[in-house]
Formats: sequence, C-alpha cells, structure tokens
Amino acid sequence: MNNRFISVLSGLFFAALSFNISQAHAQSDNFSVQQLAQVEQIKLQALESDLAWRLVESLTTEVGPRMPGTPGDKAAVAWAVAKFKAMGFDKVWTEPATFPKWLRYSESAAIVSPAPQALHITALGNSISTPKAGIQAQVIEFQSLAELENAPDNAAKGKIVFINYRMNRNRDGNGYGPAVQARRDGAVVAAQKGAVGYVMRSVSTANHRFAHTGGSHYKAGVTKIVTTAISNADADQLHRLIALDKPVIINIKVQAKSMGEGTSYNVIAEFTGSEYPEQHVLIGGHLDSWDLGTGALDDGAGVAITMAAAKLAVSKGKPKRSIRVVLFAAEEFGLWGAKAYVKANKASLANIVAAAESDFGAGKIWAFDANVHDSVLPLVSDIAAMMKSLDVEYLAKNSARGGPDLIPFRPFNIPVFRLSQDGSDYFDYHHTADDTLDKIDPEKLRQNVAVYAVFAYMAANAKTRLIGK
Amino acid sequence: MNNRFISVLSGLFFAALSFNISQAHAQSDNFSVQQLAQVEQIKLQALESDLAWRLVESLTTEVGPRMPGTPGDKAAVAWAVAKFKAMGFDKVWTEPATFPKWLRYSESAAIVSPAPQALHITALGNSISTPKAGIQAQVIEFQSLAELENAPDNAAKGKIVFINYRMNRNRDGNGYGPAVQARRDGAVVAAQKGAVGYVMRSVSTANHRFAHTGGSHYKAGVTKIVTTAISNADADQLHRLIALDKPVIINIKVQAKSMGEGTSYNVIAEFTGSEYPEQHVLIGGHLDSWDLGTGALDDGAGVAITMAAAKLAVSKGKPKRSIRVVLFAAEEFGLWGAKAYVKANKASLANIVAAAESDFGAGKIWAFDANVHDSVLPLVSDIAAMMKSLDVEYLAKNSARGGPDLIPFRPFNIPVFRLSQDGSDYFDYHHTADDTLDKIDPEKLRQNVAVYAVFAYMAANAKTRLIGK
Repeated sequence: MNNRFISVLSGLFFAALSFNISQAHAQSDNFSVQQLAQVEQIKLQALESDLAWRLVESLTTEVGPRMPGTPGDKAAVAWAVAKFKAMGFDKVWTEPATFPKWLRYSESAAIVSPAPQALHITALGNSISTPKAGIQAQVIEFQSLAELENAPDNAAKGKIVFINYRMNRNRDGNGYGPAVQARRDGAVVAAQKGAVGYVMRSVSTANHRFAHTGGSHYKAGVTKIVTTAISNADADQLHRLIALDKPVIINIKVQAKSMGEGTSYNVIAEFTGSEYPEQHVLIGGHLDSWDLGTGALDDGAGVAITMAAAKLAVSKGKPKRSIRVVLFAAEEFGLWGAKAYVKANKASLANIVAAAESDFGAGKIWAFDANVHDSVLPLVSDIAAMMKSLDVEYLAKNSARGGPDLIPFRPFNIPVFRLSQDGSDYFDYHHTADDTLDKIDPEKLRQNVAVYAVFAYMAANAKTRLIGK
Repeated sequence: MNNRFISVLSGLFFAALSFNISQAHAQSDNFSVQQLAQVEQIKLQALESDLAWRLVESLTTEVGPRMPGTPGDKAAVAWAVAKFKAMGFDKVWTEPATFPKWLRYSESAAIVSPAPQALHITALGNSISTPKAGIQAQVIEFQSLAELENAPDNAAKGKIVFINYRMNRNRDGNGYGPAVQARRDGAVVAAQKGAVGYVMRSVSTANHRFAHTGGSHYKAGVTKIVTTAISNADADQLHRLIALDKPVIINIKVQAKSMGEGTSYNVIAEFTGSEYPEQHVLIGGHLDSWDLGTGALDDGAGVAITMAAAKLAVSKGKPKRSIRVVLFAAEEFGLWGAKAYVKANKASLANIVAAAESDFGAGKIWAFDANVHDSVLPLVSDIAAMMKSLDVEYLAKNSARGGPDLIPFRPFNIPVFRLSQDGSDYFDYHHTADDTLDKIDPEKLRQNVAVYAVFAYMAANAKTRLIGK
C-alpha cells in the first residue's frame, strides 16, 4: 500500500509537471523566446527519454564494479570512451590520473564468545591485512570518535576498538560529515590508545545487514591496525552483547594489499560550442566505484545523468559555448582524478562558465543553487525560473559547493552549481554490495536528466557569460 | 515522510484499540462476566508488556543462529529450558528429535565472463559441495520450474541451470507455494536435463541483495548437483547479461556436508490446568533457525510470542485446562521436531483442545480462524469477539490449517487455529542474513502476544471443550 501511495503521489507530480511546462514562457534578457521554447522542449524530451537508464544499466551490468586499478576500472574507461563516441560527442579523450592502489581479497569476522556468530564486516579502503588466522581480542566500545580521543592512553591496550556512532538520516546527507571522521581517522586514534584492531558501526542509515566500506588512512609514526566496519544490525548485536557485561571476543580476518601507484583515466567528452568554443560548461560524475556493489547510485547515476543531459542539451543544435562531460577517475580513493584534472587543465580552468557534479545518487532534484559573481545572479534566476516546473526550488544563497570532485577546483573561483538530489536513502546503499541498478527509480532519473539538461543548455547558450566570485 | 506516515497511522491504531477495549464486554454462555473482564485485563497487560521483546532479544543475541545440529542449536535448547523455568512454568521438559544433519562451511560465486563480478549466493540446505575450485559452466536460463520440466532431455547438458522465477508479495504469503517448488526440486530436474549445477532466483520479495537459503532435496537415481540461490539483484544482473546474447559463464563454490543423523530437542513447558489438567491448549513456534541470520522473524518471534502469551494467559490464576508451549526442533530441515512430537505423544494428541503455531514473523495479526467441529463454533465466535478490539478480523471459514509444524498433526483432527500475521514483508527477510532483531516492530509484537494470550486463555478456560472435525 505504501508503494502504491508513493506511486500515486509521483504520478500526480509528473502530471502537474506537464501542465506547468506548457504555461511557463518567461521573459529574459539572456535568452530569446525561441531559446526558452527550446528549453521547454528539452525538458519534455528528457522526461520521456530512457537514455540515462540505458547508460547506467549498461555500465553496471556490462562493467559492474570498477574500483580504481582493477580490471573493472579499465573496462569502465573503455566503456565510457566507446559510449561517448557512439553518442556523437565532438571530442572524446582521456587524461591519466595516478593514485595509491589498494586491493581487497577477503574479509570476514565473527563473535568468538560469549555467543559465537558471524559478523557482516568489510575492510575500509587502505586497510592492512590481518594474519591469516585473524586478529582476535576483546572488544571495547566507544560511542564516538571524540569519546575515544578523550580516553586515557592505553585505554584500549590489546583490545579491538568498536566505535558505535550511528549517523542520522537527512535529505541533504548532513549526517555524513560527523560520521565519516571515525571512518577516516578511527584506526589511527585507536592505535594511539593501544588497540590491535578497529571496527566501527558503518557510516550508514540502512535497516539492512550490509557493511559500508569507504576511504581511511594511516598516519606516519602510528602503528597500522586493521580497519573495518560492520553493518548496523551487527553493531546493534555487538552493543547488546557488550552491555551484558561479559567480555566479548571477536575475530577479524582481512586480506588486502596496498600496491603502490596505480593509473587510471579521466574520460572527457565535449560538444563544441559554435561561438565561444573554448568557454565550457563542465558537468560530470565519477566513473570509478567501490568493489562491493555495482556502483549504480555511486556514481553510475551521475555518469549517466550528465552524459544524457549533455546529449539532450544539444538536441536543438550546436550550443554557443562547449558542453563538457568529465567522468572523474579514482574519486573513491581520494579525488585523484579531479586533482589530476585540475593540474592538467590549469590553464583552461578560467574557461569554465559553470560546473556541477552529480554524485549523490538518483533521488529527485529538489533544490538548485549557485556560487557565482553577484553581477551574473540575474542569469542564475533565469535558469532557476526554468527549473520551477521540474519542482526544483531555487535556494538563492549563492554559496553552492558542488560535488566532491569539484573540491580541487575551489581555489580557482569557478562558477559552481549545486543541483541537490533528495539523498534521504542514499546512505542506505552508499559503498555497499547493495548499491545495484534496482535502487534507481527510472522516473526520478529522468527528472535529474531534465534538470541537468536545462542547466547545461542555459549556461552554454546565455547572452551573458557566467563568472565566479 | 513515509515512515512518519506509517508511525502516525500506527499510533492512531493503538489509540483506537485502547478505547475499544473499555467498551467491549460481550455476553457469552462459555464465560462468566468475570472471565471476560480478565480477558480485557490480559489484553491491556499484553499490549504494555515487553516480555516477548526481551525473550526474542535474548534468544537472537545470546544464542544467535541455531541451525539444527550446530552448537547454536544446543545453546538454544539450554536457553529455552532455562527461560521456561525462570518464567515459572509448572513443567518443563525436552523430547528428542532426529534429523539428517547438514553443515555449511563456505559459499561464493562469480560471473567469470563476459563481465567479471561477484554474485551473492547461498547454498540451499542439503546441497553437496563443489570441487574446491568450483563448478564453472555456461548458464542457461528458464523462467520457471515448469519451463525446465518441459525442456527437451539434455537441454541443459554441461550447463548451470538458472531459474529466474520471481515470487509475488502478498499479505498472506501466497507467493511462497508456487516459488518454493523450484527450491525443493530444481536441482533434481536440472540434473535430469543434464545440468552440472543449479542456481535459482531466491524465493524472495526483497529489494536488497541477500540470497535466501531453504530446504532442498535430491532424488535417488538422479545425479546430485550443487543447488544454490542468488539474490534478486544478482538474478536481475544474470538475466540482463544473458539477454545480451553472449555466453555467460559463472563459477559456483560451495563447501557443505551431510553428516548423517543429528539429534536435537523439542522444548516443552506447561502451565497445568486446575480442572482438566490432561486437556491442553498447544501453542508454539520452532526453536531452530537457518544459519545465515539470527532467526528473529523465523522464528524467534514465534517462540517469544507464544512463551509470553502463555505467561500472560495465566496471570489471573491457574487455567482450567493446561496451556502448553512447544518449541519445535529442526523445523527448517523438514519439520523433524513436529514429526517426533506427534510420534512421541500420539496417545495424548486427543487431549489437545486447540493448537496454533506462530511461524510467519511478527507482523500485526489481522485475521483469526478455526478448524473445529461445527458444534463448537459458538465458542470460536466468542473468542473472535474478544479479538475485535485488537483489530483482528474473524474469517469464519472454519478451514484454518495452522503453522508448518502442525502439518504432522493433521491426521489426528485436532482443533486448529490460525492467527494470521501480516506477512507482506516476511519474504524480504526469510532465510537470509538480514533476518535480525531490528526487523521486529516491538508494538506489533505486543499485539501478537495479546492475540495469542486471549486465544490461550479463552480456549483453556471456556465451559465448552473445543473438539476437532
């Protein structure tokens, strides 16, 4: 009944949409009436197009998992090049990006006593291996990284530290920041307190028994210990057993390896502009994924949305400015593709008129905002006006930060846009085996494509050039 | 928003409940006014009691998985005996049950080509092992067991058969029957068609990437081949790859072993009746579980609901007839505990005045029905009347069949009752690693206890003795 309820709501939403579209012919200094009519046509086309679905279906099925440095990653690069070419982009090229390569071979864990049972665990990226027989020790629980940090030296001596912090669910994913510190730094702090192993409640909002992987790091001078995460259900279980006040002994087995420097490739494609070809709108996602799932939401969706949006944005003819899609490499290991892109393209970053990355799943886009020079805010308002009928709210804070791969761009003050997806359930799937194609709603995916296509078309074709702060 | 919506509804439901209870004082030939008042008090007590929650929390945490013949199974028997005693039952005893013991050691699978990636798989109960390196072969897909049965001899020669039948979701679980045949018999039919391995889409309604295990069997004279199930997401993936018309090669690795005869124990406890001690109401669930999860819904819930209900049913004083709780052994391997119970207690089965098993999770009980001699239907109506305020509908078909463990009782025409839980999401979790405590809603669990307590009290204390057809 529940699903039916959602489906009815969603039906009403899309019915309302089609109605509004036919009404909304705004006036603007930046666009001709004909251009605005084209925007409306592109919207409708996008809302009926299954192009993005076919792309993400193909990527997640025919390539599947694509962790940086694996054969899947290589296959993904070849896939992207071939797809861009088949889609008729004017230019398609790759640029190398290096990163610290790490491979996972196997992982398992169990409660040894007082109640023997399996734990659903995953090694965090960059973890060392345990001995073949595993690390076996008593567990000591902390409620947060801060509590561990404040514990006395040797508080965890000879033990496995368990951080039991649970992230909160929110549309904008604001629970991620506070939770992710324990993933990045937990093993370092635990080792400093004398621990022999580290396990955390996953950075997760899920009600299902999946462990969430993700990047972690060690610190020079601090002993490296195995660093892992367990599912919410397993964290609950560990917590309950510890609360019974008997020693809880667990065993963690991880086989993984750091392999030195790996190389992958940003895959870049462009529809070249007719008037200002060097100026370009930059949209994209990241092509790599973690190894556990097939990277549908993270970030097959972003790849597919932006590829499809670029294609739709030029469906009425060549844009005035170029529209560039960048599929970043090795994001999951630390934005290595984005860093390489910025380094390799430093000279031309000033030509970016608008940048937006889609890397937050495939939920409906509910908000839009920019981070641009005040003088071009009227153009941002024009774009926002055309998104209203897609049920996208203009936040008008002018402080958008873009997706993770745009972080390395920040020093260059390029005009950044945020097309905010509803991420309420994003952290149910993020970095798990459960991040698979069936988690994408085709209708919401089309709305994403429509929003990105409107954005790309308008930023590329406006009379005014967007500039940064 | 969705969850909040449900929570509001559920709040309203329970508010309405408390209101109705104070209004419902029916007249009856079978019960005194004082008895009916006690029923109302027991209802209210049950709706406020966390006894069942504490039981299922303890069983799933301190024992965890308890597959027949494993140390967990042994621990569960000890747990049940100790709990029954601590709860003050008048008699507590065990009765042995033997079964064909089977153990799972490891299982994994992968698509080898054309797109290498892991499959989430589980061996079905009773499966043979593969060689250590696995069985590797091309997959051939069938949409149902019937399609496989109708295929020509040798249709699957040298291949791994994949049955892609998807079960439907329904409140009463009616999708299970049609789907489960492929689990029980699939490997036999596949072997008859020349297959070297068998994999099926799990008997599952889940949108999450868990494989569902469950019983399967081989047939004398037919080659035994490995028999497995993959998650819905993996079945979708396999189907999509096969649809691309390239040969799809997979590798399945299973290490498992049949170990001859094992022994476990039905754990039985009774509150002894004051007037007709030999007559008894029989309620229960099964104590064993599959090994993948902690058996919270299947069937920790049934164990806890019936233990707690018996306790609450005697909270106003000794019942006229005995109330017996039977926690059956080795249900998952083929109702072995129930069969042993019927055999060992043949002489006293005629003393059962009412039997009901809870083995369908912990969803709200929405319907009630009996299977009794027509002459005692007025008493059934009396019981049904007292359940109305618990939002339980009386179906009045008089053809209830009871839970799985009551199947071996059928030849003896005992009075059987069905207290029907809403099982809409039961097959999301059934026989998976995801069957864990967090899947039980404490409020719904209490409603279950209230319904079972009302049933047990009324069947035990009625003037009329219930009799079978």
